[in-house]
Amino acid sequence: MADPAAPPPAAASSGPIGIGVVGIGKIAKDQHLPVITSSPDYRLFATTSKSGGYPGFPCYTDIGDMLAKEPDVRAVSLCTPPQGRYELAVAAIDAGRDVFLEKPPGATLSEVEALRVRAEARGVVLFASWHSRCAPAVQPARAWIAERTVRRVQIDWREDVRHWHPNQDWVFQPGGMGVFDPGINALSIATRILPPFHLTSAELRVPANRQTPIQADLAFVLDGGAEVVMALDWLQTGPQTWDVRVETDRGVLTLHEGGQRAEVQGSDGLGPLKRGPHVEYEGLYARFAELVRRRISDVDVSPLRQLADAFTLGRRTIVDPFDW
Amino acid sequence: MADPAAPPPAAASSGPIGIGVVGIGKIAKDQHLPVITSSPDYRLFATTSKSGGYPGFPCYTDIGDMLAKEPDVRAVSLCTPPQGRYELAVAAIDAGRDVFLEKPPGATLSEVEALRVRAEARGVVLFASWHSRCAPAVQPARAWIAERTVRRVQIDWREDVRHWHPNQDWVFQPGGMGVFDPGINALSIATRILPPFHLTSAELRVPANRQTPIQADLAFVLDGGAEVVMALDWLQTGPQTWDVRVETDRGVLTLHEGGQRAEVQGSDGLGPLKRGPHVEYEGLYARFAELVRRRISDVDVSPLRQLADAFTLGRRTIVDPFDW
Repeated sequence: MADPAAPPPAAASSGPIGIGVVGIGKIAKDQHLPVITSSPDYRLFATTSKSGGYPGFPCYTDIGDMLAKEPDVRAVSLCTPPQGRYELAVAAIDAGRDVFLEKPPGATLSEVEALRVRAEARGVVLFASWHSRCAPAVQPARAWIAERTVRRVQIDWREDVRHWHPNQDWVFQPGGMGVFDPGINALSIATRILPPFHLTSAELRVPANRQTPIQADLAFVLDGGAEVVMALDWLQTGPQTWDVRVETDRGVLTLHEGGQRAEVQGSDGLGPLKRGPHVEYEGLYARFAELVRRRISDVDVSPLRQLADAFTLGRRTIVDPFDW
Repeated sequence: MADPAAPPPAAASSGPIGIGVVGIGKIAKDQHLPVITSSPDYRLFATTSKSGGYPGFPCYTDIGDMLAKEPDVRAVSLCTPPQGRYELAVAAIDAGRDVFLEKPPGATLSEVEALRVRAEARGVVLFASWHSRCAPAVQPARAWIAERTVRRVQIDWREDVRHWHPNQDWVFQPGGMGVFDPGINALSIATRILPPFHLTSAELRVPANRQTPIQADLAFVLDGGAEVVMALDWLQTGPQTWDVRVETDRGVLTLHEGGQRAEVQGSDGLGPLKRGPHVEYEGLYARFAELVRRRISDVDVSPLRQLADAFTLGRRTIVDPFDW
């Protein structure tokens, strides 16, 4: 599988990591490229895109061309949609390049497992990124919860799909994941800050003219018996809600705005956390640089596994058709 | 979580393994108990069942009672349906007993992962069994395929649900998995004999009055690019089909009857394999005895992961209502 003519995996180095970005869409322009080009950890050398690159850098239309012609590209960041990302990752791994995967790391769990095994065999670093885990209040919340016993968790993730994904029919097609497209961010936070938990039941509400859920109610049980309830709603207009409320034996912590800030009631030590800057992608790229330098992969599929469990065990209810 | 008063994990020993069987239904009576009671590797001490035990052995209605009152039960075999098996496994693990899980190992991937972590922490052996992998032709097929390049695979799993699951409504309820209840046996064979593969598309046909598919067509790609197509059908009357056809660069191998026998065309060395005896559960219990003696767990979730991928990525088509 690995091309014997490809360069060897990147060696540990203290200089900037030469990087290429694949898929120059909204998320790459808004988040990845500004972070990469302003970080001393990275040096951008090229992009691959079918719809225009990034001013001042070579743009290829095929990842194979970029990998062949840009030996300074030692790492590749894949910002394309999950469908089709597997083949791009295989090309990069087989060419001995380290790989950063946007979330979710793939369209299926089995393809991510195959990439993990392949990267290990090739000696390259693979990073399955979950940007919400780098929201500023998530790590402090994790530390606060770790010293307490969780009694109950309520997750509310309510937003307006027409605002966030206007006319993006792919989110309602098979593999688009529907309301779990934002919901997997909630799952990535929950799997980071809570003890292990697993699904006990789910109701998935699917529009009659679509394939994926527009709303979902899920019930999980935490290791130790506490209940976790989760409501996902893609029809909320007005104020948008991305909250995780964790009731413990000593106080209640609520993450707001997808982990941007935390509020603590009845705390016995830790005061309310201030709202931090929007550092999610800075945190991800700092983590990736650390992984590349230490030659360690980080492929935690637990958010995607929770999603797959919901699709496997969930009861489907057909609801009103959805049109933009 | 672990009860400090519980006995320590079973130590390696050359004598018979004291065992308790939980869930005395059709599969336990047909397969597990005859194998256990005739094997020199095991000694049955007790059962747990709400609907009658096994003649000549103590029967408890609660697993906690059995674990507390039967110190000779060093290992527990769980033959109950997947829903509810998690709590039974936790009770056994926390009581320091080794655990044999019927297939599928759980209702969700996350609960199986939680059990794996828990068993490791407690120092007990956990075995996720897949009986079809012990069908007599499966291991020879695996060895034959390993020396060849796979070009294409076709899996046909067609049976009559009215014959095999008469009036068992649970198979069509959420978590019952529908036609994947037998289909996971095909997946357990395919993940054992083939190189890694992952789903690219699936169509799930769900009766209008049910929750789980009654037919499914799946397409996978093998590591290396070969196509795997799989047809699951629960409406086949007359002859029943459980076949896996593997086309390679040097010959075609077909597993028939769920791995009971293999046929080879154009072989260059290995003759057709004879039909063997029905040794699936003998093989599973021999494997479990080996794991218990060597203190090693074996929790391969890949068949359940492939199933979860199909439920996540599959396109659902509503078909005619199904009634018994």
